[in-house]
Amino acid sequence: MSDNVPAPLPSAFLAALRAQFRADFFSETPDDLAEYGRDWTRVYTPAASLIAFPKTTAEVSAYLALCNEYGVAVVPSGGRTGLSAGAVATHGETVLSLVKMRALGEVDVVGRTVRVEAGAVTEQVHKHAEAYGLTWPVDFASKGSSQVGGNIATNAGGVKVIRYGLTRNWVLGLEVVLADGRVLCMDHALEKNNTGTDLRQLFIGSEGTLGIITAATLKLTRVPQSARVFLFALSSLADVVALFRVVCSGPFLLSAYEFFTQACLERLLSHRPLRSPFDAAHSHYVLVEVEAETDLDDWLASLFELELVRDGVMAAHGTQAAELWALREGISESLSATGFPHKNDISLPVAALEAFCAELNTVFASEYPGFEICLFGHVGDGNLHVNVMKPANMSRHDFLVHAKASDKTMFALVQKHKGSVSAEHGIGLLKRAALHYTRSETELAVMRTLKAALDPKGILNPGKIL
Amino acid sequence: MSDNVPAPLPSAFLAALRAQFRADFFSETPDDLAEYGRDWTRVYTPAASLIAFPKTTAEVSAYLALCNEYGVAVVPSGGRTGLSAGAVATHGETVLSLVKMRALGEVDVVGRTVRVEAGAVTEQVHKHAEAYGLTWPVDFASKGSSQVGGNIATNAGGVKVIRYGLTRNWVLGLEVVLADGRVLCMDHALEKNNTGTDLRQLFIGSEGTLGIITAATLKLTRVPQSARVFLFALSSLADVVALFRVVCSGPFLLSAYEFFTQACLERLLSHRPLRSPFDAAHSHYVLVEVEAETDLDDWLASLFELELVRDGVMAAHGTQAAELWALREGISESLSATGFPHKNDISLPVAALEAFCAELNTVFASEYPGFEICLFGHVGDGNLHVNVMKPANMSRHDFLVHAKASDKTMFALVQKHKGSVSAEHGIGLLKRAALHYTRSETELAVMRTLKAALDPKGILNPGKIL
Repeated sequence: MSDNVPAPLPSAFLAALRAQFRADFFSETPDDLAEYGRDWTRVYTPAASLIAFPKTTAEVSAYLALCNEYGVAVVPSGGRTGLSAGAVATHGETVLSLVKMRALGEVDVVGRTVRVEAGAVTEQVHKHAEAYGLTWPVDFASKGSSQVGGNIATNAGGVKVIRYGLTRNWVLGLEVVLADGRVLCMDHALEKNNTGTDLRQLFIGSEGTLGIITAATLKLTRVPQSARVFLFALSSLADVVALFRVVCSGPFLLSAYEFFTQACLERLLSHRPLRSPFDAAHSHYVLVEVEAETDLDDWLASLFELELVRDGVMAAHGTQAAELWALREGISESLSATGFPHKNDISLPVAALEAFCAELNTVFASEYPGFEICLFGHVGDGNLHVNVMKPANMSRHDFLVHAKASDKTMFALVQKHKGSVSAEHGIGLLKRAALHYTRSETELAVMRTLKAALDPKGILNPGKIL
Repeated sequence: MSDNVPAPLPSAFLAALRAQFRADFFSETPDDLAEYGRDWTRVYTPAASLIAFPKTTAEVSAYLALCNEYGVAVVPSGGRTGLSAGAVATHGETVLSLVKMRALGEVDVVGRTVRVEAGAVTEQVHKHAEAYGLTWPVDFASKGSSQVGGNIATNAGGVKVIRYGLTRNWVLGLEVVLADGRVLCMDHALEKNNTGTDLRQLFIGSEGTLGIITAATLKLTRVPQSARVFLFALSSLADVVALFRVVCSGPFLLSAYEFFTQACLERLLSHRPLRSPFDAAHSHYVLVEVEAETDLDDWLASLFELELVRDGVMAAHGTQAAELWALREGISESLSATGFPHKNDISLPVAALEAFCAELNTVFASEYPGFEICLFGHVGDGNLHVNVMKPANMSRHDFLVHAKASDKTMFALVQKHKGSVSAEHGIGLLKRAALHYTRSETELAVMRTLKAALDPKGILNPGKIL
């Protein structure tokens, strides 16, 4: 939506940049500016002025010190899979890509930790650890592109939060470069280290507005030995929530409770060569993954007696489990590939989900009459991904104006039920105007105080969040 | 060690206090000043000037606004079970006790949350939740006195960290009063809420230096159905660490791995009417708690084949489990009741524990020849509680001077192995001089920046941490 013409970078800054850094440290090619100037949020036009590709923390430090001296804005850029425009340069900012800092350190098998550079791709970290029977349990659909630094900067959620918690829980050490170039080494590989304010936490989830993450020591855990995956078909969102309550008391550790609607499944099946395990279509589906050492036949039988579930399958082996997971994980990409979704990522207290969803249906009926709504998400975390698809006969511009206005009704409902306008995607540019539905004036004032204290010239990811 | 005579409070402040607040809002009686002026750290002489007993957040807010106006220092005070003098008033500070704010809200059984006031006692919260089959898994020996606000302000650890993580992981919402009296309501009961810098994290573990916690929404979890408790006897710390590696790969969820030495056990048995389950004395003991649905006989048999374990018992029922736990949980209190311990609470990467412990023995031999050393702790978290007992024929003063000097040798060793000088007890006054062994100059500078930004007059718990 932005079409500002960016002001050119100060010539003294460019001269200093050329004098101080190697020739291939930065790029100004149109391809690079377009590629690294934005993330997966497709609402903004990228307008980056240059892309820096540091290879070391020392280079990040020197670059930030230079930018700070000249007041040049820096947008940190990871795998660019963000959905809130947290890594988009729309106003001529420079972009600092971590793509050339992706070293994977040796796995500490006893301590179950590994130190990696911020540009390491999530899935590569998984593979690196799996060789030792370990995993970093931060797991979501975009893991093949997303980077560790971005995951941490956005406190990424995903499909295993109900079992393992958010990314925040799986970061032991952190190396961060501050706006003025100072390097903050907080790289202890310790579970317990109560030695003053935990500065790591400031940077986790702050979307690159307070510092740039260059490396992290990750906490690993054992790969679960006994994961079992089910897909259930149900007939309403209320039943999805009711089933959640039942599953929560099951004789196992619940590691995922993911839901999606038939509208999502249809988009997915039209985009990817996959198929539903069910003969008939159902309105709602739930993917359940559990860790259990014991036989679950009795539990399953009792579940079907409750008549919440219309149909169900259990994966007989790992390949089938992966096939069921593909039905859930391909959704977000399929919606964007087959149409133009307006995305929201909200969360509610689980106890409020049923009331909220009933009211949400009323909102949809009044704000989006006849529009296709694709709902999916992590019900166990109270997290719904609400996707409204642009009708074919409506312009993008009109659709976005409409959606932006309609959001207010939904956000008011979120606020009423003490929910969040951004469960896991973050705020970036996209949800900035909605922040006040979840954060009070005092909270916003304290965030501004912290920003001013740590980045007084405001060079780090300006305009994001605040 | 402090015998400063505090400067009297400004008379204008006292006049305003009397004018604005109810008569019983504060106390200046010698008994209250002595009781609320200090925590379990017995090294400092309390010198509080008055104790405030607010009943509501509004009163905390009004009191802090007044203190901020007059530059009057405030030490927040919970259950006073701290071991680093984080809640000691040594310089005529006023103390704000949360003892009259201990309301327990209704348990949200679906969302598994409960909102409580900061003065709620940990064990009362446990009992409140257990009526619904739920628990707040923050658990340690002083739970009968410690308060939720203090647990959060110190990011308390304890005996279940290996299973559940630190207190930080179990706080969803937080209400904090800032130095100037502004109330920061961050009281969402949401697992996922990525809406800007997570301000809760600033206050968790900051020992009351950035704000005063008045209420919290706690995350609860199911009471484990199948906990089994073992006590093993071993013959060296190296074996304790070796056994840990074996237990980590067992067919269960490990929920505690606690160790103590014969010296600890002897002090305990002389103080409390308990007995050892073993006929003979052994040098080292490990309490293991696991959650397992399946039979563990085969696993136990394989364990004994390794010849790491000299003897072992499994609790046959809940009462026996409680008896085994009492052997571990009574230690800290017994050491203080039977002597004068110099306490350290350090952590190391688990992979470094064996090397560190070997070097620590050398340190003990040179720094504390003939002294009684009582070691216990949470090996699975790399956390050792190192207690050196004052010899009967040495004065407290001489002992503390000696211990303070000797600490430097141990802290240098901790630093060498990238450990922490305070794993879970915090810094307070007691470990302030040791902070630089774990935190770099840049980290300390950023902590000072945050302190200046949020408490510019420095009224909140002055002298603690920094």
